[in-house]
Amino acid sequence: MINALFAAHPDRWEKYAPALKDAFDTLGLKVDLRQDHAPDIVDYIVYAPNSTLRDFTPYTRCKAVLNLWAGVEGIVDNVTLTLPLARMVDPGMTRGMVEWVTGHTMRHHLGMDRNITQQNGTWEPHVPPLAADRGVTILGMGQLGMACARALSGLGFPVTGWSRTPKEAEGITCLHGSDGLKQALGTAEILILLLPNTPATENTLNATRLAMLPKGAFVINPGRGPLIDDDALLAALDRGDIAHATLDVFRVEPLPVDHPYWAHPRVTVTPHIASETRVKTASQVIAENIQRGEAGNAFLHVVDRKAGY
Amino acid sequence: MINALFAAHPDRWEKYAPALKDAFDTLGLKVDLRQDHAPDIVDYIVYAPNSTLRDFTPYTRCKAVLNLWAGVEGIVDNVTLTLPLARMVDPGMTRGMVEWVTGHTMRHHLGMDRNITQQNGTWEPHVPPLAADRGVTILGMGQLGMACARALSGLGFPVTGWSRTPKEAEGITCLHGSDGLKQALGTAEILILLLPNTPATENTLNATRLAMLPKGAFVINPGRGPLIDDDALLAALDRGDIAHATLDVFRVEPLPVDHPYWAHPRVTVTPHIASETRVKTASQVIAENIQRGEAGNAFLHVVDRKAGY
Repeated sequence: MINALFAAHPDRWEKYAPALKDAFDTLGLKVDLRQDHAPDIVDYIVYAPNSTLRDFTPYTRCKAVLNLWAGVEGIVDNVTLTLPLARMVDPGMTRGMVEWVTGHTMRHHLGMDRNITQQNGTWEPHVPPLAADRGVTILGMGQLGMACARALSGLGFPVTGWSRTPKEAEGITCLHGSDGLKQALGTAEILILLLPNTPATENTLNATRLAMLPKGAFVINPGRGPLIDDDALLAALDRGDIAHATLDVFRVEPLPVDHPYWAHPRVTVTPHIASETRVKTASQVIAENIQRGEAGNAFLHVVDRKAGY
Repeated sequence: MINALFAAHPDRWEKYAPALKDAFDTLGLKVDLRQDHAPDIVDYIVYAPNSTLRDFTPYTRCKAVLNLWAGVEGIVDNVTLTLPLARMVDPGMTRGMVEWVTGHTMRHHLGMDRNITQQNGTWEPHVPPLAADRGVTILGMGQLGMACARALSGLGFPVTGWSRTPKEAEGITCLHGSDGLKQALGTAEILILLLPNTPATENTLNATRLAMLPKGAFVINPGRGPLIDDDALLAALDRGDIAHATLDVFRVEPLPVDHPYWAHPRVTVTPHIASETRVKTASQVIAENIQRGEAGNAFLHVVDRKAGY
């Protein structure tokens, strides 16, 4: 029997316990998963940074700490943690992001909102251009940006991806650096923000960069709230330079009820739903890592403690 | 010199004449394209069912009637037409259809309408299931249905395709016959209608078939208006058995302003925009068929007059 401690906020237990047990069963792993094992018999810790567990010293037989979240900033600097720490790379979260981005890109491409909101008996066919004639640019070509780029390219859009460091992907125009950014914004009829949140990326979409977009561009932000200078975006929307912004992330969440984004006719707010960890697929990743540990193989997605991710 | 008659509503001439001439030039075909050739010198008729031409008897030297539209129901029963009749299979139209179907499938899958129409400051995250957990069924696996099936399968949906005759496609559950139809409807959380319009397909989606769908299913009809028993669909929408219908085609078009579809909160009307023939790519198909005719080769996309499509 493998003893696994579930160390996360208790409100997660109800969702994760059955999914983890399913995942263990599927791999034939006999795991006793509990919220309260004695520390010295624990083989694995399934961890979320909202747990109260801070001292890893008593877990003398434990083989690894398996994070349920992608972010490890709440644990990576813990000096009592000398075990391997794996971050969550949830294929379900990536798929969810690709689906949200694909859906809202198609929505703006097709001009669906007119049909959804104006059911007044007016028969006015507006046929959109084909995707092949609609430039899409993604800022940020990490795991999520790359997956979205491939999906949109597969649907026929000419996709440009911009990132800090050079990347390559078949069928996608990959740019980097400040000259690359200007070029990437110039063809962005639909712009998708998927950069990480760092001091260097704050206000990436400011007044100067907004002015580089084609007139009537659409902005989609499933990345991070601080990537956008909100006042600059609101001004560009007011002028009609930007046709519409669909925003999933904000500097303050929930977005305050009096924030101008809520009332703006050219803004769609979605409540941080694009990048949700999926219980089922995340549980499968945890189970796979326990299976690897039991077989003496290297764990997946082990954090580089020096780099911090 | 090849004599081609352009038999369509005169308002199409301005758009099509230059595109057809470009396409003929590209293939090196010397074609005299006119709206008013003497019948006995015409080699090919480029035809749209909105033409006034009804008697094909005088076109004694004509080799084929090349339809500009995908649908041939306005001409297929014309007894004076004994020539080969080719329907339009326009790669641009196919792409447009795939984009419209993909967009509205993603829209219903993600539950976007809530976000688009309810921007009232309420932060209520509803995370949809992944596409992998959302069954999509396409009725009609011709050129358009197959292309949509492949695109949606590529986005991760489990796709079932139903057709009159057996088909095969990798990664897609292909069913046929009446038992197959029942099975196909049973998993159709999102149902897409792409059957041709024939006496056999009229009212395919009647009360009995609607009752075979999962509760809360979405119906998307970019195919043909008569595929749906409108009264039965409205009743199913009123009961909430069907969550929403997005309809692009109707028995009468434009859809009359007093039709209940316009006012129904669970219906989205789009004004026959999903299957727009694209002038440039359609003209290339016409030119290719004339080239084949001149070389003595079989025409592409010849209609089976018995099947009616």
